[in-house]
Amino acid sequence: MTRVYVHDVAVRDGFQIEPAFVPTDVKIALIDELSATGLAKIEATAFVSPKAVPNLRDAEAVMRGIRRVPSVIYSALVPNAKGAERAVACEVDEINLMVSASETHNRANVNRTTEQSLSGFRDVMSIVHGTGVAMNGSISTTFGCPFEGSIPETRVFHCVERYLKLGMDGITLADTTGMAHPKQVRELTRAVLARFPTAEITLHFHNTRGMGLANVLAGLEAGVVRYDGSLGGLGGCPFAPGATGNICTEDLVHMLEAMGFHTGVELDKLLVAARRLPDIVGHDLPGQIAKAGKITDLHDAGVPKTPIS
Amino acid sequence: MTRVYVHDVAVRDGFQIEPAFVPTDVKIALIDELSATGLAKIEATAFVSPKAVPNLRDAEAVMRGIRRVPSVIYSALVPNAKGAERAVACEVDEINLMVSASETHNRANVNRTTEQSLSGFRDVMSIVHGTGVAMNGSISTTFGCPFEGSIPETRVFHCVERYLKLGMDGITLADTTGMAHPKQVRELTRAVLARFPTAEITLHFHNTRGMGLANVLAGLEAGVVRYDGSLGGLGGCPFAPGATGNICTEDLVHMLEAMGFHTGVELDKLLVAARRLPDIVGHDLPGQIAKAGKITDLHDAGVPKTPIS
Repeated sequence: MTRVYVHDVAVRDGFQIEPAFVPTDVKIALIDELSATGLAKIEATAFVSPKAVPNLRDAEAVMRGIRRVPSVIYSALVPNAKGAERAVACEVDEINLMVSASETHNRANVNRTTEQSLSGFRDVMSIVHGTGVAMNGSISTTFGCPFEGSIPETRVFHCVERYLKLGMDGITLADTTGMAHPKQVRELTRAVLARFPTAEITLHFHNTRGMGLANVLAGLEAGVVRYDGSLGGLGGCPFAPGATGNICTEDLVHMLEAMGFHTGVELDKLLVAARRLPDIVGHDLPGQIAKAGKITDLHDAGVPKTPIS
Repeated sequence: MTRVYVHDVAVRDGFQIEPAFVPTDVKIALIDELSATGLAKIEATAFVSPKAVPNLRDAEAVMRGIRRVPSVIYSALVPNAKGAERAVACEVDEINLMVSASETHNRANVNRTTEQSLSGFRDVMSIVHGTGVAMNGSISTTFGCPFEGSIPETRVFHCVERYLKLGMDGITLADTTGMAHPKQVRELTRAVLARFPTAEITLHFHNTRGMGLANVLAGLEAGVVRYDGSLGGLGGCPFAPGATGNICTEDLVHMLEAMGFHTGVELDKLLVAARRLPDIVGHDLPGQIAKAGKITDLHDAGVPKTPIS
């Protein structure tokens, strides 16, 4: 049985775009609940400007309030040296950096060229050096940019190479706005692994165009065993009101376990957390297993039904 | 470029469970709109008891009111000889029969054993014989039964064999309540194709547990080139209120075309129809492309967005 590592990013990638502030104690309780499910990694917060992302303005309080489970990697998104100092002070297990493969997207996101972003990460590395904090480098818009369209794979290779030279422990290929399709995932991921065989790759998919789990399947076929998901499918797409965001963690775990992969995640515990999440954010969520139940949840033949289906 | 044939079942599998009657002229207009998109097949109605499926009580009026496009196969679901007579009188292109691989599901669905269902289809065949109407045999619960759980593949083989002996032109393996996962789809479909290499197989998936397009990917890998979808993802699951139904036709076409398959479907026309559908049924639909746009729909870098994603 192949082990697949499942990461949850709901508390960061999901909450960051919620219009209402999620109280700190609610975030802490949710992270603690997720910590008990067997997830390999939780992206717990981001050490960014409170003006830029008001919903994550409590990064320190969250990181200091949670109960750490030793088997879980607690990661935090960090944009710059200042964020790295804050994250190190809170003793995060991992810092996640982010650059866009797309020049236009990077400029729109952080008002820098990709070169400026990548060079700036040297300051982050010198802050982190010797602290024992692991480093992950995410590459946004790996599979397509909402402004530029498709991205030459040489851009992606360049970012991976720069990240590895900076000393990253892991690399995340992120489909920021859900533009990846399975053929592309299989081909690009294989090309990255062929060029950088020792890189520890995570795939970060959004289900914006319904292909999220199909892309996971393609990633598995390419040999990737690390995936980001978001509890309940929390998250969204800034360009598509009403569209779904990240792939749903419990739907991902359900598919992987059904296929015989070993995730180490207790799906039932994850489902308890997922079913509480709509009350926390005040709206419905796109996750399917929370509504439909697991494949193994059987029904009584006497239950009302349509006569044909 | 591999040709993939896309069928739409929204007007039958979708409308049959809508609580409100969809007016006949609205059904006819929608089928006519779908006919102009390049779909290979449209399941237009079902010749069933009006008491059992009130929303499809206008089967004759629908079949006689639509404008037939020669390249489209207009199919109708038929449960028995009486339905076959009605369908033949309306000059459908194809009759679709249905039996469950699961004994319990077949009994719950039509109050017969699977053997009684399959034997009864002989009467249907003698009515259809010589009329030029094509025959398709669907196998419900192929990938799992909501009452019995997993179904031995020998049950599926048995149904395929019986259907082929009856003289079916095509066989549909249906995941009636969305229990299939990609590994199973790949293995079972390959096994069916290995045993019955000349059978013209269609895969009918529901997205009840979020795996719909991943299952299509697995089906493509097994060599199947015919897929049922439902416009907008219209449909549902009688056991899971709030869960999604059939895979969404326009999301399916979008993925296939992005991957380089040739569907012959004009996605933009399909999207016009899909975006009108929520007004017809009075509720939101799970299709993603209708909300998020195609991969190729680019945005202006000045558009408001979240600062990180």
